[in-house]
Amino acid sequence: MTIKGLRKIEPYVAGSQPQGKNIIKLNTNENAYGPSPAVQSALVEFDVNSLRKYSSLDQAELRETLSEHLGVSSDQIIVGNGSDDILAMAFLAFFNTDRPILFPDLTYGFYKVWADLYHINYHEIPLNDAFEIKTSDYLTDNGGIIMANPNAPTGIVMPLAEIEAIVEANQDVVVIIDEAYVNFGGQTALSLLDKYDNVFITRTFSKDASLAGLRVGYGIGSPKLISVINAVKNSVNPYNVNTLSERLATAAVRSWSYYEDTSQRIVKTRDWFSLELEAIGFSVLPSSTNFVLTEPAGISAEELFHYLQSKNIYVRYFPTVGRLKNWLRISIGTQIEMEKVVQTIQELLP
Amino acid sequence: MTIKGLRKIEPYVAGSQPQGKNIIKLNTNENAYGPSPAVQSALVEFDVNSLRKYSSLDQAELRETLSEHLGVSSDQIIVGNGSDDILAMAFLAFFNTDRPILFPDLTYGFYKVWADLYHINYHEIPLNDAFEIKTSDYLTDNGGIIMANPNAPTGIVMPLAEIEAIVEANQDVVVIIDEAYVNFGGQTALSLLDKYDNVFITRTFSKDASLAGLRVGYGIGSPKLISVINAVKNSVNPYNVNTLSERLATAAVRSWSYYEDTSQRIVKTRDWFSLELEAIGFSVLPSSTNFVLTEPAGISAEELFHYLQSKNIYVRYFPTVGRLKNWLRISIGTQIEMEKVVQTIQELLP
Repeated sequence: MTIKGLRKIEPYVAGSQPQGKNIIKLNTNENAYGPSPAVQSALVEFDVNSLRKYSSLDQAELRETLSEHLGVSSDQIIVGNGSDDILAMAFLAFFNTDRPILFPDLTYGFYKVWADLYHINYHEIPLNDAFEIKTSDYLTDNGGIIMANPNAPTGIVMPLAEIEAIVEANQDVVVIIDEAYVNFGGQTALSLLDKYDNVFITRTFSKDASLAGLRVGYGIGSPKLISVINAVKNSVNPYNVNTLSERLATAAVRSWSYYEDTSQRIVKTRDWFSLELEAIGFSVLPSSTNFVLTEPAGISAEELFHYLQSKNIYVRYFPTVGRLKNWLRISIGTQIEMEKVVQTIQELLP
Repeated sequence: MTIKGLRKIEPYVAGSQPQGKNIIKLNTNENAYGPSPAVQSALVEFDVNSLRKYSSLDQAELRETLSEHLGVSSDQIIVGNGSDDILAMAFLAFFNTDRPILFPDLTYGFYKVWADLYHINYHEIPLNDAFEIKTSDYLTDNGGIIMANPNAPTGIVMPLAEIEAIVEANQDVVVIIDEAYVNFGGQTALSLLDKYDNVFITRTFSKDASLAGLRVGYGIGSPKLISVINAVKNSVNPYNVNTLSERLATAAVRSWSYYEDTSQRIVKTRDWFSLELEAIGFSVLPSSTNFVLTEPAGISAEELFHYLQSKNIYVRYFPTVGRLKNWLRISIGTQIEMEKVVQTIQELLP
């Protein structure tokens, strides 16, 4: 018998997670270095017996720690099971008008997926020829805005003044700024929180804090926006952050100087790697993230993608995205890994 | 300026999570005993460095382990961030008709919350005077069915033949059986999977596996249903289960004999506790879970609730639910804790 009521939905395909000892995995923008020693200590000291009880409903410990770290009040913070969890809830919480929400055509692929899933009307606005967001495109009537800054997969950062212009002109809707990559050279919009009630900033522990496997992200906004998204959280999955994740993420924030060091190392390697690719003749967009978007020369993106994979180097290729068909997104690994990548390309294109 | 598009939603209020050394916490049906020693070992052996990489997209290790444990195929299993995550996704995945879904008026309070959140039409069907589900109520035209077996907060189990009658009569929609408490005396519907494509069973590690703080649950159904809910998962939050949670939950399944022991201890204490309450003159519903629903005599539920709380004993009181106004739900703690509860009540009602 046919079962009625089943959702018809196009499954979203995430980047592959190849396993193996000798691979260089540069396809999902994971951190090149491990978590801080303080995270290791928190794990060792964790009392497994405490897991018999439910995790906290409000992540007070982590929120207090983030509050001090970021200089915002703890009632301006919500914690989630990765920033994907925060973003999915934000779409449900903030985008409930009939007008379309706006986001760039080239950005985090999930914005479109959530809009489709929750039947939210949207317009994708093309980046300009330099792959930049054009502020003036976002000054029209809309039901909300979401953009990543720095943007992905371009890596390009938008100056804070431009972000403020968009937030200022759209005070009747929520503007979400996804700052997943902000600590690799971005400019945070945190200072806008004092002036605007309509800005909501999302962050993740997956990139700069090297805890992609722990699934912790958070959102920062006015107490009013936080209370609306908290009501959604309490209607979807109130215990959305497990006890271990909260504890280890708290340890990560308390040892932030370690992460400032590793972020600086990644930035240094990224800038070196970009120059090396340009020396080979590739185009490289100016990155403020832990990845670069590059257009190869002397070989197609598709061929280079397969060649690198044959050498156990995994990068991201977007065959279905028109404007990116000849570009590859390469995460920044350790300096040694990136030297290996350069050398491997040079062996093909001397 | 007024911000448009904000969701208007009544925040759901979960049971309180009192902290403190000397409290007896019997208000959220947590396990009286700790996780198995194998879970502790898995934590100690965990390589914190692996957290820099994303968690798995398909939880192959945990699904394979569950597959052997339950005797179903691994493509019949989906894992989530607690069974709340699985249930929330199941509502999005399976309940997409215009007809109302059906569930009992007294059951897990969240079914109504998810239906409201996702704008799903529903009918709440009253339990009979003995607080039982009446099978014949579920043989009408509907858009899907969800019920807990054993039910909560009643604790009452429904025979498998009754569940089968409902599944059999509703093969054109999905019937969800929430088996959160099944291992304290319930009858699982797993055997129905061979005969019916429309049954979806949910389970959690929060109760019998003593891992409420770890947030792991799973769903079991036909490969067809699993592929639909997987598409939803991949559109909401593909990395919904963190690496540590998968590893520790896997260790729990592999050490299941430990949990059979602790479940038996809880069942024994529950049956003893029920008889003690009846000896005091209280009504007690026949429980197949790790809690009992009881109607006090000689004192109102409200008074007893406050009296127990003044003695640092926390139980669940439902002041806003008409039929439960004079009932309390008491989780089963250790034998020593429950002896203390009986003694505390006897001091008040000699």
